[in-house]
Amino acid sequence: MATGTPNEPAGALPPASGGRLRSVRRLTQRKHRVESGEFLAEGPQAVREAIEYARVRELYVVPSPRVRDLVDAAARAAIPAYSVAEPELNRLTDTINPQGVVAVCSWPPATLADLPADARLVVVCAQIRDPGNAGTVIRCADAFGADAVILSADSVEVTNPKVVRASVGSIFHLPVITGVPLAAAITELKRRGLQVLAAEGGGADQLDRLADAGELARPTAWVMGNEAWGLPPEHAALADRRVAVPIWGAAESLNLATAAAVCLYATGSAQRR
Amino acid sequence: MATGTPNEPAGALPPASGGRLRSVRRLTQRKHRVESGEFLAEGPQAVREAIEYARVRELYVVPSPRVRDLVDAAARAAIPAYSVAEPELNRLTDTINPQGVVAVCSWPPATLADLPADARLVVVCAQIRDPGNAGTVIRCADAFGADAVILSADSVEVTNPKVVRASVGSIFHLPVITGVPLAAAITELKRRGLQVLAAEGGGADQLDRLADAGELARPTAWVMGNEAWGLPPEHAALADRRVAVPIWGAAESLNLATAAAVCLYATGSAQRR
Repeated sequence: MATGTPNEPAGALPPASGGRLRSVRRLTQRKHRVESGEFLAEGPQAVREAIEYARVRELYVVPSPRVRDLVDAAARAAIPAYSVAEPELNRLTDTINPQGVVAVCSWPPATLADLPADARLVVVCAQIRDPGNAGTVIRCADAFGADAVILSADSVEVTNPKVVRASVGSIFHLPVITGVPLAAAITELKRRGLQVLAAEGGGADQLDRLADAGELARPTAWVMGNEAWGLPPEHAALADRRVAVPIWGAAESLNLATAAAVCLYATGSAQRR
Repeated sequence: MATGTPNEPAGALPPASGGRLRSVRRLTQRKHRVESGEFLAEGPQAVREAIEYARVRELYVVPSPRVRDLVDAAARAAIPAYSVAEPELNRLTDTINPQGVVAVCSWPPATLADLPADARLVVVCAQIRDPGNAGTVIRCADAFGADAVILSADSVEVTNPKVVRASVGSIFHLPVITGVPLAAAITELKRRGLQVLAAEGGGADQLDRLADAGELARPTAWVMGNEAWGLPPEHAALADRRVAVPIWGAAESLNLATAAAVCLYATGSAQRR
């Protein structure tokens, strides 16, 4: 049993069989994630959140005092836990170092119906492709109090291990709605009474001026374009405003995650003023 | 000659010798960058900036219409340019795709004496280690109108190709001062009359409240801690204030580049209000 007194070694966990480890390892491949509806969380921080938000099916740990709290939390939640030698655990993931713990997670995909009724801050990523960017945007959305993240159809798959890792647990904190065509998402957000702002380098409105004018205090959805090609004109035209993050220096542009962070901070701040 | 009429093919450039290519390739190693004072810029955007800011010593291109403007700019600046076959060019860098152009650059290292006399916004990174973070912070500092970036002693080397790449040309736009002990940098910034704000998750002051109170309109230097261990207490104690970027959701923290972006945007915005 994984539970016990504080002095009971976590090494008392049953060892993971080779077959079990092979099936875990397969979850590094998209095909197997889609087939099984399962994905991997790595590292103590992400796994702690996954357990707390009831997303974990199985836990794999290199027994040591530092994963003791995770093993105990899994036991309390009746999650099967297995011990693995460190080299074997490291082979389960693409990470250089999963820090002694990997969890097999699953969740029901979120849909537009999961958008909270009183949503006041939402970020929509249009065809976001880089998993690090997607994870960072989800983390920022969580930090700045967004009610949901929407990744439009043709975005990177949200259970990609690099997305999960870059989100540092935030992927478990708020609905991440996927697979929705961008136009359908914007229509629904407008129907719910949110103003839809497209973040665009060449936008006619400027973020700091909108903030000063009090316009960001309204319920707001931000639409962020793709890393390489931005937002196609027909999609930008669906927004209520096209808003530039101001560039006061010589840089040509900002990266996607940075622009999203600044837009979300400015809006969260205005909504709380 | 690299110059000529618009119809002259860029293919008229002399081919790069094997020995020359080997010496370029060596610049992917820190040791050779330090010895030679040279480093590489890759891709049209970074190389364009490097030429404009007079940092390029040699240009290597896969002849094609898309690098034509760079070859012409190099010719106008009397920079030697060489043609390279695409597979050879790709071997010069660690990038998957340098997009047909690599430049050997050099610059005199910036020191505290290069801090502009009227500096109103500066960012100081304390022992920043991740090259992608360093490049992104430099890009944000440039975008939000900072007058200089200081990377304290023990930070990632600023001419690391990943720093150069992530800065997307911004490394050429503003002084990036390196190798200064953190305490010396803070002392000098205070002497110049800038308030020194340490960005810290647990800071007593909150960014949005300082902004609302008008405190960010003053000349300001931001000190950002290391990715893993933040700012040691003895260094945080040197700052005038310890300031938290507010977290309104369930995220535990923000990543370094995101936090820097938000602090710099908020300050640049306040200083222009």
